[in-house]
Amino acid sequence: MAGSTLGTIFKITTWGESHGKGIGVVVDGCPAGISLAEGDIQSYLNRRRPGQSRFTTQRRESDAVELLSGVFEGKTTGAPISMIIRNQDQKSTDYSEIAGYYRPGHADYTFDAKYGFRDYRGGGRSSGRETIGRVAAGAIAARLLCNLGISCMAYTRSIGPIEIQSFDRECIGTNPLYMPDADAAEKAAHYLDACRKEQDSSGGLIECVIDGVPAGIGDPVFEKLDALLAKAMFSIGAVKGFELGNGFSVAHAKGSENNDSFYMTEDNAVGKRTNHAGGILGGISDGSPIVFRVAVKPTPSISAMQQTVTTSGEAIDVSIHGRHDPVIVPRAVVVVESMAALTIADALLLHMTSRMDRICQFYDRL
Amino acid sequence: MAGSTLGTIFKITTWGESHGKGIGVVVDGCPAGISLAEGDIQSYLNRRRPGQSRFTTQRRESDAVELLSGVFEGKTTGAPISMIIRNQDQKSTDYSEIAGYYRPGHADYTFDAKYGFRDYRGGGRSSGRETIGRVAAGAIAARLLCNLGISCMAYTRSIGPIEIQSFDRECIGTNPLYMPDADAAEKAAHYLDACRKEQDSSGGLIECVIDGVPAGIGDPVFEKLDALLAKAMFSIGAVKGFELGNGFSVAHAKGSENNDSFYMTEDNAVGKRTNHAGGILGGISDGSPIVFRVAVKPTPSISAMQQTVTTSGEAIDVSIHGRHDPVIVPRAVVVVESMAALTIADALLLHMTSRMDRICQFYDRL
Amino acid sequence: MAGSTLGTIFKITTWGESHGKGIGVVVDGCPAGISLAEGDIQSYLNRRRPGQSRFTTQRRESDAVELLSGVFEGKTTGAPISMIIRNQDQKSTDYSEIAGYYRPGHADYTFDAKYGFRDYRGGGRSSGRETIGRVAAGAIAARLLCNLGISCMAYTRSIGPIEIQSFDRECIGTNPLYMPDADAAEKAAHYLDACRKEQDSSGGLIECVIDGVPAGIGDPVFEKLDALLAKAMFSIGAVKGFELGNGFSVAHAKGSENNDSFYMTEDNAVGKRTNHAGGILGGISDGSPIVFRVAVKPTPSISAMQQTVTTSGEAIDVSIHGRHDPVIVPRAVVVVESMAALTIADALLLHMTSRMDRICQFYDRL
Amino acid sequence: MAGSTLGTIFKITTWGESHGKGIGVVVDGCPAGISLAEGDIQSYLNRRRPGQSRFTTQRRESDAVELLSGVFEGKTTGAPISMIIRNQDQKSTDYSEIAGYYRPGHADYTFDAKYGFRDYRGGGRSSGRETIGRVAAGAIAARLLCNLGISCMAYTRSIGPIEIQSFDRECIGTNPLYMPDADAAEKAAHYLDACRKEQDSSGGLIECVIDGVPAGIGDPVFEKLDALLAKAMFSIGAVKGFELGNGFSVAHAKGSENNDSFYMTEDNAVGKRTNHAGGILGGISDGSPIVFRVAVKPTPSISAMQQTVTTSGEAIDVSIHGRHDPVIVPRAVVVVESMAALTIADALLLHMTSRMDRICQFYDRL
Repeated sequence: MAGSTLGTIFKITTWGESHGKGIGVVVDGCPAGISLAEGDIQSYLNRRRPGQSRFTTQRRESDAVELLSGVFEGKTTGAPISMIIRNQDQKSTDYSEIAGYYRPGHADYTFDAKYGFRDYRGGGRSSGRETIGRVAAGAIAARLLCNLGISCMAYTRSIGPIEIQSFDRECIGTNPLYMPDADAAEKAAHYLDACRKEQDSSGGLIECVIDGVPAGIGDPVFEKLDALLAKAMFSIGAVKGFELGNGFSVAHAKGSENNDSFYMTEDNAVGKRTNHAGGILGGISDGSPIVFRVAVKPTPSISAMQQTVTTSGEAIDVSIHGRHDPVIVPRAVVVVESMAALTIADALLLHMTSRMDRICQFYDRL
Repeated sequence: MAGSTLGTIFKITTWGESHGKGIGVVVDGCPAGISLAEGDIQSYLNRRRPGQSRFTTQRRESDAVELLSGVFEGKTTGAPISMIIRNQDQKSTDYSEIAGYYRPGHADYTFDAKYGFRDYRGGGRSSGRETIGRVAAGAIAARLLCNLGISCMAYTRSIGPIEIQSFDRECIGTNPLYMPDADAAEKAAHYLDACRKEQDSSGGLIECVIDGVPAGIGDPVFEKLDALLAKAMFSIGAVKGFELGNGFSVAHAKGSENNDSFYMTEDNAVGKRTNHAGGILGGISDGSPIVFRVAVKPTPSISAMQQTVTTSGEAIDVSIHGRHDPVIVPRAVVVVESMAALTIADALLLHMTSRMDRICQFYDRL
Repeated sequence: MAGSTLGTIFKITTWGESHGKGIGVVVDGCPAGISLAEGDIQSYLNRRRPGQSRFTTQRRESDAVELLSGVFEGKTTGAPISMIIRNQDQKSTDYSEIAGYYRPGHADYTFDAKYGFRDYRGGGRSSGRETIGRVAAGAIAARLLCNLGISCMAYTRSIGPIEIQSFDRECIGTNPLYMPDADAAEKAAHYLDACRKEQDSSGGLIECVIDGVPAGIGDPVFEKLDALLAKAMFSIGAVKGFELGNGFSVAHAKGSENNDSFYMTEDNAVGKRTNHAGGILGGISDGSPIVFRVAVKPTPSISAMQQTVTTSGEAIDVSIHGRHDPVIVPRAVVVVESMAALTIADALLLHMTSRMDRICQFYDRL
Repeated sequence: MAGSTLGTIFKITTWGESHGKGIGVVVDGCPAGISLAEGDIQSYLNRRRPGQSRFTTQRRESDAVELLSGVFEGKTTGAPISMIIRNQDQKSTDYSEIAGYYRPGHADYTFDAKYGFRDYRGGGRSSGRETIGRVAAGAIAARLLCNLGISCMAYTRSIGPIEIQSFDRECIGTNPLYMPDADAAEKAAHYLDACRKEQDSSGGLIECVIDGVPAGIGDPVFEKLDALLAKAMFSIGAVKGFELGNGFSVAHAKGSENNDSFYMTEDNAVGKRTNHAGGILGGISDGSPIVFRVAVKPTPSISAMQQTVTTSGEAIDVSIHGRHDPVIVPRAVVVVESMAALTIADALLLHMTSRMDRICQFYDRL
């Protein structure tokens, strides 16, 4: 089944494997007239590029994007925008060994079960490198949102037991773990060093805040804005939980605690005194910031010994070596941000047809 | 935008408002040849029907389904199956008062922001009654799955601070809270009685276990099986969190703890010694039971006093009376089960085209 | 597969069989705020209702629509609009005989081949009655278009060898064959009487003109506006050909004859001196009227003797009696008009996101 | 809107402009396990490559395909197959002149109307070069069909007034006009030479025959197999008419002439004595060859003088020079064949879920 496409109006299609010729994405349905250059995309890609710190794989990839279509004289034309990022350091010899067995925590077994065989060079299609296409597309969505005064900001909320205790936006980009709290970042770095010594890896939490979404975006039934965000986040490998606003804690809450009171703001708009809801009511944005968290599992590739089976059904013990991140979280931050931007951009475009009076205004102007 | 349709092959479209003429659903893409009678659907609807205990709204609705098409001589024909459930006890006078203000925790404000006005008779389209269509369709999906040896079972895991301590499948249907632990059910009932006295309401957790899904179902990128489940669950009003397998606890875990070891089972299949992954690896089912949890917020309609604003921008205090459930969880159990069944059924049908050798076998037999 | 849904934003889902409980449609994605009453829909349905002349089936059906949802205080709310038309005169005894063999020119055999069995009461799902749902939905699309100054007008261009020689718009509604030429209508009526005497039936041509579509609607690749119209028209049973503008005659034309010259109109817009293109260039509307024709085959149910086989593989001769139209064309006129309206409405809504400057203007106004 | 994607299961997304960096396509949903090499695709592309005869543009393009993903060890893996064909001879100086005015018969004006501006280097996105992506994808669809014993064959039926009088399959590939009648091909060549002398161009007819499709493929309502073919064909630029089987001639026919009688074949299958229906009844294949024709307009770029307007609204006379084909038909033959293969492949995959008994059989085997 064709599962590599996402979106209804602003639609992306990704392709590519970890050890094939490259990774790419086609963005279709992008409105005409957005200023766009390769540099806009490259700056997003650089945030997830490997080899930037000791906490990410040492695979050497420049992850340089080539913009192939859909932009003319510096502006999007309305035609599909195709982008390619060539793989450079695909040492598939690293991986020939894993062809013969199923790595615990990976999709090796399920790919074989689905397709009868698999591209065993690294993660193949289920590699983290697949997210390059999402980030390249997300950079374009972010530019679209920027034109409308909307921003998506993701950061690491916790790594293993280390959670942020303060929030400094400026701090996020200054540490390799993308934490908004320098102290926590330092502690988390020590924790990861310890994990590595134990040949182990760590999970963590990513939080994302979307500012500037006007009230009224999203649909009330199956295409709820939070349902679309949930799907987008769970489509990122390694995500095992998603929650909006107060999230799982609502299970213990009472209605009187959990409801957000409405009030009139100084500029005479409807505001909420709290934001337990996380910015979405009944699937539709309420004008408050949209806030959600995703739980990311520890890197499954660890050098500690593990039990598994070969493709021919023999029990074996394995220790997985290679160039793996000891934690997935930091490099997933920009992926979360990109998937959020893609989801919001599509929802904004879909929203434009909700009222006949506004449709009439729109067409009067033609 | 058209957000009332879900699914790619097994596709449902719901319609109807809480205080309109009725609620309905069209199931399109259901395979021909499944035995189906109104009773099969009614038994599912009865599980979410109001008025069954003191914990659910006292609105009187028989919620009787009428099967309008797509079934001939007791079997599905492949044509769309249309079902209608007429509303009977829509006292919209109950609701005329709420036309003028925005209820905290409800979608009143966001509907006005989206559509310019709203059907203010009760929740309108965002009422819990909308889920009737999902349950009627879910009953059909469950029959399809049953033919393939697959079952979905949801139950209440906790209400407020009361969590189950034991698991007895038989117990689920014997208490009005659908808990698999009779003691917990009794404690939860007391807790809810206390909430009601305080004019308040409670949240809770629903857990769902899907047994019998073969390995290989789901897609590796955007249409991951867990991503589809996440979307389906978040499309249920009041859901604020979704987690698969070990879920949010993976954020604190290490790789060595979180990975599931593979082994060969007695009948020479690949098995997993643990199921931290919750039955899905890389978006594709791994043959273990699929296990997930959803967090459900407390009923937002409470009679305790709350602050809000009127549609004309005046601050007021309100106490919401009416026939509301003090907890949403128990009646949402069958909705969760239905949405799970719909998601799995669609994924199974989509899966059939993944391998050319099996497609050839299929067509050879024609 | 789920093939009963059409459209991307303005989306319809039809259901029902010729001899089941009824026929219906759900319109999802209709913008909020359109004035709508049952009468608006009924007037469209009356144009295809049986029994209006000697050229249509004598089956007695009032085809009365019941509006079930999506309209509140006389206006569409943005929620799905569900409509049901109950069958009244489903004499399925008429049809018990046809259960056993395959009628030539009908879908009996192909349904059995696809689904393993069929609802043999009349045409079942492939009956002309299925189009009732399209017309009910088309009536709503037509109201949407009317708000934007757009109209769709279909009429009979020819029946058998009788083609219109003149065009009088007022005349269309005054003859049972919906021809814009009273003389031709009379001749065609005589021709049909002769066909009936010979126990035979006749084909014909329907033409449709869509006025008021601004330039710029439609997409340049797979979702060309003419491609969508072609699909919509070919989805009507009995249609065997579709052509736009000069249509098939372009095969014999030269470029110098076929190109339409551009010029500046009096109000300083870009106009075309001719309209060989039929109002669409490169898949996108050019501001001229959109003009197309569809070829409709003769009613396959004829009482003249025909050869066929039984479901158990025996050769037999059959003469099909029943209440059949001697010509499909006149009752298909409003179906063509409805499908055109649905296609154009969806394309107009989709078009709103094509330019970033207009999206910015739209959201500034919120 | 995202209009560059086609298909439900076997899904293609094309990108690229005539004078950009290249043209490409992503094929998603292709089953795993099909043998595939670049050569399989190249042989299709070579059939539409320019410069092969005096009847096609002299633009020099090798149109060499690079396969970027989705194939491993010579077999499709189930992952998206990305292909790129770099443009080589994009002399966009040829086209700088046309930036300032609207070419008659082209989409220049409608692109400006839709997007506010356009990539004026040649046809941009609406160039015939866009079809390269379709043909590359069609080659893969054709391989899939080949595995199931299904073939699509298109050829030129007429050019201007010259229609084929005989049919020799072997002849098709031996003349540059792809006609199955050598005499007609010679006459047509003379006719085209004359057109060119007059600085003019010619239209024509393409016919396509699809053999081997089993009965039962396609859906009975909106996704009729013929409706999908109609859309696919009309999505090819320059197509102005589509007809199935007897097509437009049914408008003059009687039921007794047009119906196809059923009979039992020697191997005890249901056959049809004639094939006026063109292989599809009620939207579903009937087991006979599927036969359709498309009308292709004359190349709109002609050097004869034409009237038009500039983008700033001035009337001018233009003579369009450049490297244009005097007839579109021959190079469109393989495009028609490709679009047919894509449509049938997708329909076959969708069909697999129509019957519960076969689904059970399929899953039993897992």
